Amino acid sequence: MEVQELIHEMGVKARAAAGAMRAFSTERKNEALLAIADALEAAKPQIDAANAEDVAAAKANGLAPAMVDRLTLTDARFKSMVDGVRYIVELPDPVGEAIWTRERPSGITITKVREPFGVIAVVFESRPNVFVDTAALCLKTSNAIILRGGKEALRSNLALNEAVRAGLLKAGLPADAVQLVGTTDHAAVAELVRSVGLVDVAIPRGGERLIRAMCEAALIPVLKHYKGVCHVYVDDKANLPMALSILDNSKVQRPSACNAAETLLVHEKLAPVFLPMVRAWAADKGVTLHDDGAGVEYLSLDLNVATVPDVDAAIAYVNANGSHHSDAIVTDDAERAAKFLRDVDSAAVYHNASTRFTDGAEFGMGAEIGISTDKLHARGPMGLEELTTYKYVVRGDGAIRG
Amino acid sequence: MEVQELIHEMGVKARAAAGAMRAFSTERKNEALLAIADALEAAKPQIDAANAEDVAAAKANGLAPAMVDRLTLTDARFKSMVDGVRYIVELPDPVGEAIWTRERPSGITITKVREPFGVIAVVFESRPNVFVDTAALCLKTSNAIILRGGKEALRSNLALNEAVRAGLLKAGLPADAVQLVGTTDHAAVAELVRSVGLVDVAIPRGGERLIRAMCEAALIPVLKHYKGVCHVYVDDKANLPMALSILDNSKVQRPSACNAAETLLVHEKLAPVFLPMVRAWAADKGVTLHDDGAGVEYLSLDLNVATVPDVDAAIAYVNANGSHHSDAIVTDDAERAAKFLRDVDSAAVYHNASTRFTDGAEFGMGAEIGISTDKLHARGPMGLEELTTYKYVVRGDGAIRG
Repeated sequence: MEVQELIHEMGVKARAAAGAMRAFSTERKNEALLAIADALEAAKPQIDAANAEDVAAAKANGLAPAMVDRLTLTDARFKSMVDGVRYIVELPDPVGEAIWTRERPSGITITKVREPFGVIAVVFESRPNVFVDTAALCLKTSNAIILRGGKEALRSNLALNEAVRAGLLKAGLPADAVQLVGTTDHAAVAELVRSVGLVDVAIPRGGERLIRAMCEAALIPVLKHYKGVCHVYVDDKANLPMALSILDNSKVQRPSACNAAETLLVHEKLAPVFLPMVRAWAADKGVTLHDDGAGVEYLSLDLNVATVPDVDAAIAYVNANGSHHSDAIVTDDAERAAKFLRDVDSAAVYHNASTRFTDGAEFGMGAEIGISTDKLHARGPMGLEELTTYKYVVRGDGAIRG
Repeated sequence: MEVQELIHEMGVKARAAAGAMRAFSTERKNEALLAIADALEAAKPQIDAANAEDVAAAKANGLAPAMVDRLTLTDARFKSMVDGVRYIVELPDPVGEAIWTRERPSGITITKVREPFGVIAVVFESRPNVFVDTAALCLKTSNAIILRGGKEALRSNLALNEAVRAGLLKAGLPADAVQLVGTTDHAAVAELVRSVGLVDVAIPRGGERLIRAMCEAALIPVLKHYKGVCHVYVDDKANLPMALSILDNSKVQRPSACNAAETLLVHEKLAPVFLPMVRAWAADKGVTLHDDGAGVEYLSLDLNVATVPDVDAAIAYVNANGSHHSDAIVTDDAERAAKFLRDVDSAAVYHNASTRFTDGAEFGMGAEIGISTDKLHARGPMGLEELTTYKYVVRGDGAIRG
């Protein structure tokens, strides 16, 4: 089948499944998630075998060890993936929640209600557990989902897809609420994001190149997460041990995370005192300091350091060089803190706290499908609520407009 | 100057103005809106003269009378435009509003706060009053705006732009918070919607062709309103006088509006009784009935009529042929109503009320920049709140992630 025809057919099936999904209560959806968890456990031998084939092929093709690692579904990862599905059962269901209700003088009562999007397309890269994780979040919010994974994980994803759909069927939900794009043809991604009327929103879960390619091709909305170039600004009115502790946590706790700090900004008055402390800390923790890394996303134990004359310059630096993700000020000056929090144009802005907190679980959302650096619809961590839209439900007793 | 360079330069200026706008309180913004209203009144002779030139040129170029009418700034329209600016002063300012605050066990306090987008690009067609209306809404929400109007209204828009910027300057706000694209080069629109990093969102205020062209070219998010193909479904358990009254209001009150009904669906059991009533009403009101108009946006006294066997078929018809705008069911059966309200995938769904209520003012939003048929960010009428995004403001006392 041609790719265009294939994606169109999948979209039509997904749209029908999305329509059917509206009828299922939270209880029925939770039963289906539990059935999926069971089905995954029952299919573990087949999934493991498929994954082993993918890993062997990846090694034979000379894939980088980091990629091979991501591809590998260890027993621990398998368990954590299945636990994740059961955890989503426990989370509150946003669908049907009333955001507000208004009675209007015209005689109508308006309720703004959270609704599923309908059909979500997710394009991800090598980690097969993303398939299950994403499918579970979309099902919990009554959405149908079309998934497209990396070609090196195709066998694993096909096995996971089979188990998830078996779980859905067993629970009496439409199997087509979850579909995997089975072709590795690159044109499939472009077709997906051009499926106006069939796919409501696309979510890339991968690197910058994937995201850019999807945005270039897209006619439907794309919820995206570009890079995380996060800053810690240490003001001259900072508590220095606190500043060093926040810097340490922001940079070292998990340098590969998008909410890890990449640049330290220091008030120039403080530099003679604080920079020697930073150098000692860097030597101790194995952090390499740079002075030419404005805007660089290291994702490693590297840190760009710059001095600024005041908080205004710090704000300007962050807005010009950052990625509008997570940025922190460390200061005891309330006025400067307020200015930084107001004027830094980022999804999350911090006062005397680590940038590492930008995370669905840390924010109390329970689960996270990604962190948006966009400003439309979702900004920052995206949980279940961000996988919904809303509609206005209007009730009258024959009300007409005057 | 090349169009690309021109738009880039405007984007840079807008971005700087957007940064400055964050510092102004609601009071200062309201003062600026009042200054703009005064400046418009002071410049009325120049604006009228420019508009007269546009109208004369349009007539000379053989523009359709409806287009010439839209282009014309009558005294009444001028007054209503200026009154509109003063009215926006009275509306609550969403910027800075806390959506929620959470204290987390980790020691951080998170507040989700409404924020301006930053820079909004609006592309509109022939009505020059849209320039002022849109600029006022964007300024009230601390956004900078780049406007691009129809080429036939360029002289009018230039005069309006001058007055609005004079008002801003007088109030001490950055004039570059409002900029008009002064070239009629068509490439400017494509450049605007490709200004990643400089323009945060684009809003077309015009017809389907404009919207499609913008979406095709866009790399930035577009908040759009396609057509309004709205339905009234009359169930066999409907109150017939109520059904006729809702149909009449939905179709006849203002047929050119996007929330006017285009299709009447009638339960087949009811057809023998209700259709004769509809025919008599249509003859009385000058409505032409059609039986081949599924999905057509008439915007006139034309109405497509179809019968359906039950509420499920009505829902399927609406979802397949409608534009996800506004659709109504008339019935006394609570269960069927609930199903229709849940399963019709539209921005506004009505039970025993007219589709004509889908409107910012009728919904209690005060003002409206458009009606979104998208599902991302804004669905249905878009008021001031929909011109904002949000950020997470996180406060700690040295909190680090464990």
